[in-house]
Amino acid sequence: MTPRKIIIDTDPGQDDAIAIMLALAAPELDVLGVVSVAGNVSVQHTTTNACKVLELTGRTDIPVHAGCAAPLRRTPITAAHVHGQTGMDGPTLPDPILRPHTQHGVDFLIDTIRAHPPGSITVVTLGPMTNLAMALVKAPDIAQRMAGLVSMAGAWAQGGNITPSAEFNVYADPDAADIVLRHAIAHTLVPLDVTHRFLVTPARMAQLSALKGRCARAAAAMLGFSERFDLTKYGWDGAPLHDPCTIGWLLAPHLFAGREVNVSIEVDSPLMQGATAVDWWHVTDRPRNALFLNDVESDGLWALLLAHLERLP
Amino acid sequence: MTPRKIIIDTDPGQDDAIAIMLALAAPELDVLGVVSVAGNVSVQHTTTNACKVLELTGRTDIPVHAGCAAPLRRTPITAAHVHGQTGMDGPTLPDPILRPHTQHGVDFLIDTIRAHPPGSITVVTLGPMTNLAMALVKAPDIAQRMAGLVSMAGAWAQGGNITPSAEFNVYADPDAADIVLRHAIAHTLVPLDVTHRFLVTPARMAQLSALKGRCARAAAAMLGFSERFDLTKYGWDGAPLHDPCTIGWLLAPHLFAGREVNVSIEVDSPLMQGATAVDWWHVTDRPRNALFLNDVESDGLWALLLAHLERLP
Amino acid sequence: MTPRKIIIDTDPGQDDAIAIMLALAAPELDVLGVVSVAGNVSVQHTTTNACKVLELTGRTDIPVHAGCAAPLRRTPITAAHVHGQTGMDGPTLPDPILRPHTQHGVDFLIDTIRAHPPGSITVVTLGPMTNLAMALVKAPDIAQRMAGLVSMAGAWAQGGNITPSAEFNVYADPDAADIVLRHAIAHTLVPLDVTHRFLVTPARMAQLSALKGRCARAAAAMLGFSERFDLTKYGWDGAPLHDPCTIGWLLAPHLFAGREVNVSIEVDSPLMQGATAVDWWHVTDRPRNALFLNDVESDGLWALLLAHLERLP
Amino acid sequence: MTPRKIIIDTDPGQDDAIAIMLALAAPELDVLGVVSVAGNVSVQHTTTNACKVLELTGRTDIPVHAGCAAPLRRTPITAAHVHGQTGMDGPTLPDPILRPHTQHGVDFLIDTIRAHPPGSITVVTLGPMTNLAMALVKAPDIAQRMAGLVSMAGAWAQGGNITPSAEFNVYADPDAADIVLRHAIAHTLVPLDVTHRFLVTPARMAQLSALKGRCARAAAAMLGFSERFDLTKYGWDGAPLHDPCTIGWLLAPHLFAGREVNVSIEVDSPLMQGATAVDWWHVTDRPRNALFLNDVESDGLWALLLAHLERLP
Ligand SMILES: [Ca+2]
Ligand SMILES: [Ca+2]
Ligand SMILES: [Ca+2]
Ligand SMILES: [Ca+2]
Repeated sequence: MTPRKIIIDTDPGQDDAIAIMLALAAPELDVLGVVSVAGNVSVQHTTTNACKVLELTGRTDIPVHAGCAAPLRRTPITAAHVHGQTGMDGPTLPDPILRPHTQHGVDFLIDTIRAHPPGSITVVTLGPMTNLAMALVKAPDIAQRMAGLVSMAGAWAQGGNITPSAEFNVYADPDAADIVLRHAIAHTLVPLDVTHRFLVTPARMAQLSALKGRCARAAAAMLGFSERFDLTKYGWDGAPLHDPCTIGWLLAPHLFAGREVNVSIEVDSPLMQGATAVDWWHVTDRPRNALFLNDVESDGLWALLLAHLERLP
Repeated sequence: MTPRKIIIDTDPGQDDAIAIMLALAAPELDVLGVVSVAGNVSVQHTTTNACKVLELTGRTDIPVHAGCAAPLRRTPITAAHVHGQTGMDGPTLPDPILRPHTQHGVDFLIDTIRAHPPGSITVVTLGPMTNLAMALVKAPDIAQRMAGLVSMAGAWAQGGNITPSAEFNVYADPDAADIVLRHAIAHTLVPLDVTHRFLVTPARMAQLSALKGRCARAAAAMLGFSERFDLTKYGWDGAPLHDPCTIGWLLAPHLFAGREVNVSIEVDSPLMQGATAVDWWHVTDRPRNALFLNDVESDGLWALLLAHLERLP
Repeated sequence: MTPRKIIIDTDPGQDDAIAIMLALAAPELDVLGVVSVAGNVSVQHTTTNACKVLELTGRTDIPVHAGCAAPLRRTPITAAHVHGQTGMDGPTLPDPILRPHTQHGVDFLIDTIRAHPPGSITVVTLGPMTNLAMALVKAPDIAQRMAGLVSMAGAWAQGGNITPSAEFNVYADPDAADIVLRHAIAHTLVPLDVTHRFLVTPARMAQLSALKGRCARAAAAMLGFSERFDLTKYGWDGAPLHDPCTIGWLLAPHLFAGREVNVSIEVDSPLMQGATAVDWWHVTDRPRNALFLNDVESDGLWALLLAHLERLP
Repeated sequence: MTPRKIIIDTDPGQDDAIAIMLALAAPELDVLGVVSVAGNVSVQHTTTNACKVLELTGRTDIPVHAGCAAPLRRTPITAAHVHGQTGMDGPTLPDPILRPHTQHGVDFLIDTIRAHPPGSITVVTLGPMTNLAMALVKAPDIAQRMAGLVSMAGAWAQGGNITPSAEFNVYADPDAADIVLRHAIAHTLVPLDVTHRFLVTPARMAQLSALKGRCARAAAAMLGFSERFDLTKYGWDGAPLHDPCTIGWLLAPHLFAGREVNVSIEVDSPLMQGATAVDWWHVTDRPRNALFLNDVESDGLWALLLAHLERLP
């Protein structure tokens, strides 16, 4: 079977890095490029981090394109309190030799989607949706050319993580999420409802730490760093592992449950900025615009992740 | 022990009626009066229904005061699709002889709270908070005179019931809920997070139907009617029984779990009107203004309810 | 001709005081009562100031009823920077012997309107509309019993005065203004568009100062104080005299121009809080709910004011 | 003196067309390119119309770049009721042979501004600011490279034209205007406060109609069409001529008056969408981000326009 062609739009971020590794380890996926965006940290850092991950995995053949340096119309926020100053604190990785491509990430998205037959490119967003929103405004024709879109974004029955009501990626650029959800795309949302069920417990951390390759070791170091914040905050058995769930869904959708619903973004209210109104019970006449996942078979997904990380150098 | 003096502000509603019966059956509570409000149905209907419940229980010594006929500044919505045209469809109850008192419900709240020593009156709201908001604006001194306030209101990890994001009582008059929550009152919120865990299953329905008194028979007829809507909508084992949870908490707080948090009301956004922003993880610096319940020991509460209904005529 | 019965709801304020004096001097008007409200200063101050004005004019037969101490759901703002600490700085008036009536202002409005035949009472609001909004929510039947309502409120082609977009009275309690405008009342709005054309120039100030009575002298002292702020701010020939324009319109409507339009209140947006959306050109299908004045024959109104103040003791 | 280099971003529109003609007739200006945007009509029409105007004037050396086909996140509105189905109804102009350049208008803006020395390019927006907002998000460095920006946008003491509160260009894409105004650019706003003082009266129409060239004849035919709507709506002596005022200000700033102020865009409120909060009296601490014009010496500007149109073929 031909692998599915994907573009990863990301703000690494430790969990972004592990999501990228998971994708690179999967023969079912063909990563055409990585686009960076401001989010967890500045776009300079996320671009560098993307390059580091590709060098770590030995996949410097994949181009990195820097995307937007700030949300559409919001003051940038970051999550350095979670991810550390570089956004990918934990392992000591060398400064990358790989340089980002000169083409802007927004144009890479547009040109790549246009250059391939309709229905052949799937986009995965692991950070604020700024780049894809820009691409859709500039080139609305790409909406119907995309095979699909998978986003780590939103929350329904979990409240938020950056505010009481909003998940970080949507909160950071709600206008962008709103733009994307207004376009007709086969859009799968992987919200906190899923990722808060995919916890890196001490037992799982031990399994990961037992893996041999440099990629797995880096992954373990990353998670060792980033989980500190959530463990303190939530007092759970483990820290949620957000972004890899998106790739997990591409590889093993049978591990997930969800529902086709309308998801609308709160853009206007300061109190609720970035909250996702999820019409789970279909009580409105708003059109179904997303597959909203709300559960995951956690053990299965963890086994899948481990098996893939083990394949990497 | 002296019974706790309470005023019940309500929009009956089958579940309101059962909440009132529960309160009347409890020797620990002294119901000083019932105030009606527009909500599930018009204030004419809710006032009549309050009178019917008092006649049914033989407690025509308790005054009914009609309150506000509409929310502060919203077009009234009702829930007749759930509760039937009278708001209390199910049993056939005679037209009440009991007449509401001529004093407005808002003034009854103010005068009663002022007439008793500070800290002696607890208010229970089972519908939109219009009356109490009016009372607080007119007589802000009553806030510190109240012993407490218990409200069936809000939702956190359950989405909403009238819209994807909002619970009915808050949605119907979000401005009123906002006003109430801005006043310093010992406020306990009983949200959908609790009431969606207190389901009238067929087994429980059978237990209720086996009770002998006219009150229990009426309660069974009411629930037989009102559960139809939710069973169809949710596909659950039983329909949630909202309002009695408030009285249940007054009688047996050990059956409930919750957390002191900030709860803020979304007033401005059309998309999120009436949503409750619950700062469960204390990520903001907004002051804690409510005890937000999120769990209930359902079997214990059901046993308590049955035992009380059995005591009524 | 029977004089027109009015109730003045006010937050004196120097210009409120002069508006009250103008009304008391006019045989065409019968002032049934004065209701105070929080606005320019606290309701304690505005109540005291109302009593002072009635004593000054020798009309202690008119009852003063204290109204609401704060807006419906906003943090109170005041305009002490314009009106001085008492709200009526300027003349030295003795502490009043007159005491406010024990009945709340909201109930005075309701009971008075209900006690008179339909169509006989006109309400004049010179401050935030909190009291009337409360009265309308508590007793919606009074809307159709009122003969009319005249409010110093709003702005169209003048921007705002308290913010770039909002006039003080509406800004201070936008929810109240919204409630009032949602009720079907013959409502005349006297906005900044009018009052900014009614300036107390040095020439007019000299005319006022030449009057003999104690009331006129007090009025001159008041305006001497309050105009300082606006003269500095605007750099105009004189300071606008807001509230008396409402009484002026009742006495001499031919001096004013306006249009029946829809006026809607911005309640939700922090940026535009209290702005009035005036559909002057009838480009929406929103119903006409107010007579919005936008011009005044300034010399005529000034002559009328002088002639009336001269009649007072 | 070297002519000032400008790029015109436009949604022609009869008044856009006349603004372009005025710019082309002025030796002080060097039009580097024309970028089209959806606004008065679709971007297909506005692109074609831009080509038509350049052909009419014989300036097919100037490239036309098609820009965005829709606002960032709003349902497109148009003003075909004012401008006719083509957006430029009135004269009969041949289908243009000139084709738009293949480069997207957003990239033309970015690349041109980057290709010239800092401070050498002035952008003029005559429609919604979608393209410039996109350019600023994609390439924030261009903000400080621009010599200036002149926009027909907004309203202060004139209410709105598309709604009671908003001017068309801002209303159509308020998010874009908000983005632009958040960037530090020497921005001159030419609002309705100016353009409603620049009326095409019958006398002026007669002067224009007396001119000989094909461009002037086309301009007369355009205005003959588009003024119908406003004459009916406003009942004024003439219809306002909006967009040419921007070029007029570049050519003869002494004909205009204005003030450096903060202008903030209402993005969130449905009632006030696209309203401009103009801090004319400096009552807030919001930073001054625009020169907001509020008056024009109308005769002088008309004379300037006539003199320039006369120079064209
Ligand atoms: Ca991420
Ligand atoms: Ca209820
Ligand atoms: Ca006043
Ligand atoms: Ca235009």
